[in-house]
Amino acid sequence: MFKKIDHIGIAVSNLEQAVKTFELLGFQIAGTEEVPEQKVKVAFFPVGESNLELLMPTDEKSAVTRFLMNHGEGIHHIAFLVENLEGMLAALKEKGFNLIDEKPRPGAHGKKIAFIHPKSTNSVLIELCEVVDDGE
Amino acid sequence: MFKKIDHIGIAVSNLEQAVKTFELLGFQIAGTEEVPEQKVKVAFFPVGESNLELLMPTDEKSAVTRFLMNHGEGIHHIAFLVENLEGMLAALKEKGFNLIDEKPRPGAHGKKIAFIHPKSTNSVLIELCEVVDDGE
Repeated sequence: MFKKIDHIGIAVSNLEQAVKTFELLGFQIAGTEEVPEQKVKVAFFPVGESNLELLMPTDEKSAVTRFLMNHGEGIHHIAFLVENLEGMLAALKEKGFNLIDEKPRPGAHGKKIAFIHPKSTNSVLIELCEVVDDGE
Repeated sequence: MFKKIDHIGIAVSNLEQAVKTFELLGFQIAGTEEVPEQKVKVAFFPVGESNLELLMPTDEKSAVTRFLMNHGEGIHHIAFLVENLEGMLAALKEKGFNLIDEKPRPGAHGKKIAFIHPKSTNSVLIELCEVVDDGE
């Protein structure tokens, strides 16, 4: 069901400075990407089968802006790679979990994603993501 | 340097209830362990090459008790598996990182561990851990 930790999202207010810090720690950046759907700019640092993702909001309406205002910088969410995301969301709803996204929506890297509300999960914001089968 | 995400530590106030929630989400528990050095009881949930660790304090002097009082439940730290932990700590200190542990100390599962202060790392509490070579 849960294949692996796909990534850990870390909210930062200054991406350039945070990238320097994580490089100084010894992580190697793989690239950056703007994700307009979530109004963030992201820097990716591969670690084993996962990634660290530093997230800086690009708009004051970004959920990450609200997070920074309420909590300051720090770990924002954990994303798990899953199969059959749509079926899983239906099952989680049935079990009473509070879903931010009842249907998958487009995420970075062409994945389908959905968030579970942290109220349901001991204040841990969980993202589920699925690789889209493009028929190749 | 960083081999993988070893685990993500999640602070919870009621371990039994939190275990039920994560099982309901679809994670499978691999076991529980008391870690007297950190004054916590831990439940382990393997995901890919990593683990989720639910951490409940067993003493009011536990760092996790302070975390729960200040932040409530949620993600407490990320642990990375590394090699040559002692050399890495020396290098990080040289680079100006604020180390909670300047020398490795004993952790769960017979590992050596050390924490980096979140003030140095965009408010992310980072644990470094190393498998101890027992000569076998």
